[in-house]
Amino acid sequence: MAPGDDRKVTGLVAATFTPLDAQGEVNLSVIGPYVDYLTEKQGIKGIFVNGTTGESMSLSVAERKVLAEEWCLRAKGRMDYVIVHVGCMSLKDSQDLARHAAKIGADGIAAISPSFFKPKTAEALRRFLQEVASAAPTLPFYYYQIPSFTGVNVPVKDVIEDIEKLIPSFRGVKFSGGDLLDFGQCVGYSQPHWSVLYGMDEQLLAGLAMGANGAVGSTYNYMGCYVDEMISAFETKDLVKARTIQFKIQELLNYAIKLGFDTGVNKQLMSDVSGLHLGPPRLPLMPCSPDLAQLLLQKYHSIFD
Amino acid sequence: MAPGDDRKVTGLVAATFTPLDAQGEVNLSVIGPYVDYLTEKQGIKGIFVNGTTGESMSLSVAERKVLAEEWCLRAKGRMDYVIVHVGCMSLKDSQDLARHAAKIGADGIAAISPSFFKPKTAEALRRFLQEVASAAPTLPFYYYQIPSFTGVNVPVKDVIEDIEKLIPSFRGVKFSGGDLLDFGQCVGYSQPHWSVLYGMDEQLLAGLAMGANGAVGSTYNYMGCYVDEMISAFETKDLVKARTIQFKIQELLNYAIKLGFDTGVNKQLMSDVSGLHLGPPRLPLMPCSPDLAQLLLQKYHSIFD
Amino acid sequence: MAPGDDRKVTGLVAATFTPLDAQGEVNLSVIGPYVDYLTEKQGIKGIFVNGTTGESMSLSVAERKVLAEEWCLRAKGRMDYVIVHVGCMSLKDSQDLARHAAKIGADGIAAISPSFFKPKTAEALRRFLQEVASAAPTLPFYYYQIPSFTGVNVPVKDVIEDIEKLIPSFRGVKFSGGDLLDFGQCVGYSQPHWSVLYGMDEQLLAGLAMGANGAVGSTYNYMGCYVDEMISAFETKDLVKARTIQFKIQELLNYAIKLGFDTGVNKQLMSDVSGLHLGPPRLPLMPCSPDLAQLLLQKYHSIFD
Amino acid sequence: MAPGDDRKVTGLVAATFTPLDAQGEVNLSVIGPYVDYLTEKQGIKGIFVNGTTGESMSLSVAERKVLAEEWCLRAKGRMDYVIVHVGCMSLKDSQDLARHAAKIGADGIAAISPSFFKPKTAEALRRFLQEVASAAPTLPFYYYQIPSFTGVNVPVKDVIEDIEKLIPSFRGVKFSGGDLLDFGQCVGYSQPHWSVLYGMDEQLLAGLAMGANGAVGSTYNYMGCYVDEMISAFETKDLVKARTIQFKIQELLNYAIKLGFDTGVNKQLMSDVSGLHLGPPRLPLMPCSPDLAQLLLQKYHSIFD
Repeated sequence: MAPGDDRKVTGLVAATFTPLDAQGEVNLSVIGPYVDYLTEKQGIKGIFVNGTTGESMSLSVAERKVLAEEWCLRAKGRMDYVIVHVGCMSLKDSQDLARHAAKIGADGIAAISPSFFKPKTAEALRRFLQEVASAAPTLPFYYYQIPSFTGVNVPVKDVIEDIEKLIPSFRGVKFSGGDLLDFGQCVGYSQPHWSVLYGMDEQLLAGLAMGANGAVGSTYNYMGCYVDEMISAFETKDLVKARTIQFKIQELLNYAIKLGFDTGVNKQLMSDVSGLHLGPPRLPLMPCSPDLAQLLLQKYHSIFD
Repeated sequence: MAPGDDRKVTGLVAATFTPLDAQGEVNLSVIGPYVDYLTEKQGIKGIFVNGTTGESMSLSVAERKVLAEEWCLRAKGRMDYVIVHVGCMSLKDSQDLARHAAKIGADGIAAISPSFFKPKTAEALRRFLQEVASAAPTLPFYYYQIPSFTGVNVPVKDVIEDIEKLIPSFRGVKFSGGDLLDFGQCVGYSQPHWSVLYGMDEQLLAGLAMGANGAVGSTYNYMGCYVDEMISAFETKDLVKARTIQFKIQELLNYAIKLGFDTGVNKQLMSDVSGLHLGPPRLPLMPCSPDLAQLLLQKYHSIFD
Repeated sequence: MAPGDDRKVTGLVAATFTPLDAQGEVNLSVIGPYVDYLTEKQGIKGIFVNGTTGESMSLSVAERKVLAEEWCLRAKGRMDYVIVHVGCMSLKDSQDLARHAAKIGADGIAAISPSFFKPKTAEALRRFLQEVASAAPTLPFYYYQIPSFTGVNVPVKDVIEDIEKLIPSFRGVKFSGGDLLDFGQCVGYSQPHWSVLYGMDEQLLAGLAMGANGAVGSTYNYMGCYVDEMISAFETKDLVKARTIQFKIQELLNYAIKLGFDTGVNKQLMSDVSGLHLGPPRLPLMPCSPDLAQLLLQKYHSIFD
Repeated sequence: MAPGDDRKVTGLVAATFTPLDAQGEVNLSVIGPYVDYLTEKQGIKGIFVNGTTGESMSLSVAERKVLAEEWCLRAKGRMDYVIVHVGCMSLKDSQDLARHAAKIGADGIAAISPSFFKPKTAEALRRFLQEVASAAPTLPFYYYQIPSFTGVNVPVKDVIEDIEKLIPSFRGVKFSGGDLLDFGQCVGYSQPHWSVLYGMDEQLLAGLAMGANGAVGSTYNYMGCYVDEMISAFETKDLVKARTIQFKIQELLNYAIKLGFDTGVNKQLMSDVSGLHLGPPRLPLMPCSPDLAQLLLQKYHSIFD
């Protein structure tokens, strides 16, 4: 049975970080408070777990399972959607995680393209995604594109054409690239029960102008409330206000990029803004230096307070 | 004396093709009718000559001069702005062209970064641009960024910071890249008498949402009238209509890209749509095959008629 | 205790393919005959298992373990070295595989850099490798560099400087890149008990000239006997003969590259040359078409028979 | 008439720097002493003028002409070959320079691919080169490949196949790339009257092993005498000695690269080693800082004295 069409994803979805303890082990105890923080302080109603922000590629399959379970458990009744990212380099592992996601009551699954062996054609990528999705046919399936990490430049439009013939549970895309020609073509082609979600936080306003149904990103963990204002301004056609908020977000990210931004630094900023103890990233990401952490937190407050 | 501030560039600027005859020589006789076509059929009021679309890098300095003269002559009183691109690999040549542009009454000059030797820092690029601009200090100066051609990835924001201290005649940017974080920061930093012009025709709507003052591009030669409608829709906050037009433009360009789009193919499409005889491109660009030309013209008409 | 220094790897090491059955499951039954073939027909005395050629990134950890066991079992007493590649995107998984390799009697382990999250500095990469190696401190450890797959461009020389202070079991490098400045600096820095192995089969002769101690590659599975002749010619200073053989190998590979060469096509060629049933690759690699397989086999025979 | 076949280029060819005065103007007075230095101190018998090292792309056509004339005049009777590089972004300019080179008695001409508009196929590139070469049909013609600068990755083998049908004066290649599969195929295909010259100084030994007929490079300006020793060692099959010299050269270049090596820094090092006053580079290259110049000169002497 194909998934119900009454749960279209819209608005802001936070791509969650994975809490680790000081020894670098998964720290489930933070997840409850993390859900509290997102719902209460950032107004977030959807989460995307075990994605890039969640360092999923640095986790074992077993770790990803316990994390997915805990997120589903804690978010139950509090979030509208928990999308579990199940993409791995290995199809076997991805299928294993997809089956697991179905068992634990995830609201949807997503999969990234493998990136060590890169699919050479849209056809190869579609077949890979089909094999993943078919392991959990009752769950809405989302393709997660992020070429800056994967190096896979297959146009998303080519991936999604007639995709429901291969993947009846297909429900949308997390598009985390800068090619808005491709993005626009996806929006134009999108079916009413699909969600085309934009994933470059630093230029979400452009994605909205092009017709994005919503957004998935890491910075919504700590800037969700401001981005919600931006979306509201956009929806009421107050582009000047929307732009003002977007430029503030850009100012923070540009500052961070110049000083050396990565998922480890991002995680530290989230810890510092939220007060949650998310711990260090796992190697090969390096912990954020205390000096950099302080500079970023100051910048955050100077922009948003 | 710095250039007057009363001539801020807005709206659509067509980056013109360079007419060649069958022997591959510059064909000035087409320029008069070309100006007629742009003004009468496409509603274009500004042109950017000898840019990428104009194959300037494939022209000699002498050819660029006679072309610039003819464009200025024919556009006089009919266009609001003729911006002459004077950027070359060689600073000497760029300065020569800048001085010439001042003599022939151009409304502004623009310069691209050299791309064989790439400036390694914003500082090196700023110094290059300063030397070019100072050869024609009375003309408004625009920096022309197009990283897909130059491979130069210096953030434009870093180039334009405090740039009037170095280049008093600085008046704006033609930003032809996809990094809308950088673009947004440029818009936010832009001075009231500057123009931040977006140069990726396939995603202009995103540029407008981010605050672009106008656009410079090659497709406005043959789609200017439709893009004008898109801009009007955007300005009246009819985003649905704006998006519909943008998606049509994307559909054409996406079709062309899949079949092999380049400046030579683009030039042929302009010839076929306009009826002007623009001739072949110069090597290393290859002439567009008749089959491809026919397919593109059909697609154009199927979308816009 | 650090590993013994009496087992320096030299000569040709075949990077083995992973046999799959028609359903895409690991097919252990081929491994015995595979070892026979390599030793008897190709004169191979060392194997590198579960590497890129072995599609390790497309395998689950459990699959990699049973494969490593079977290779160690079948190669025992017949090969001089079985090096088990244990690198994964996840440090946890890599450590798990390293511990396992020690238990099953591997002669050494190797690890690639993670490539989804890319180490930003040599320091980050060294720390990752240290954590992997320390899980199997009695096994000789090799760093496996292959920037065309990983996108990690940290100079190998920067990785190996003073590396024994961090990794006492360090014994060498599989260098599968084209930067022979870096390679030469590694050879010059190499310690007597280290092996600097070159991994670009198409230009091994260049690696030998630069001082490689040996070679690891996929084509030695089916061209090992010819490459052995090339190495002998090089060692007896008959460069004309060595070059003649290298150019033949290049001719085959160049032909294959133009027709679309990847690990799936490579695997098919090995099946066809050896008569072993290695099966298809796993997605996202696609099976080699029968037509392409035939062309390559014909080319192989036309060159080497 | 096609050029005589009795002047095959072999051995070391220095790619010369362009002397500028303090105002950044071409300084012809240094060229006589420069020829003296190369012949007397470095044992150089061939020069490649107005190439990448000579900053040709930063020079005007007129400057390139006076430079070519002076080099031909001063080198007459003292050098075996003066090859004048005539490649430009513009075919017109390249043809103009080719005709000029024939008039002033150059021994050969070379042309690089245009790199702003990049030829999309070998066919497009071949046609461009044909048009250049045909402007000076009596001069030996060489194709100059340097993908790190041009971004043009057309295999050289595809360019040179049956090239004499298009370019009867074709006599060889300056191959300045790292793809030794392509290089080897070029060597294997090369005709007896052609020269396949390698252009990556940091790994010339690899090029020699693959069968290079000689080398063209910038570092031979100040390390020619040492590289001659390396070539002699290679020719007498003393690979250990050849490698020792190659590693010294690599040590210097690696040191320079880490500190920021480019044509401007390279030029300063040449000035400092030779005592010639070559002046600064032209923008967008920046002058070498005195501190960096001193470090490099010290390193040079510490390695070679």
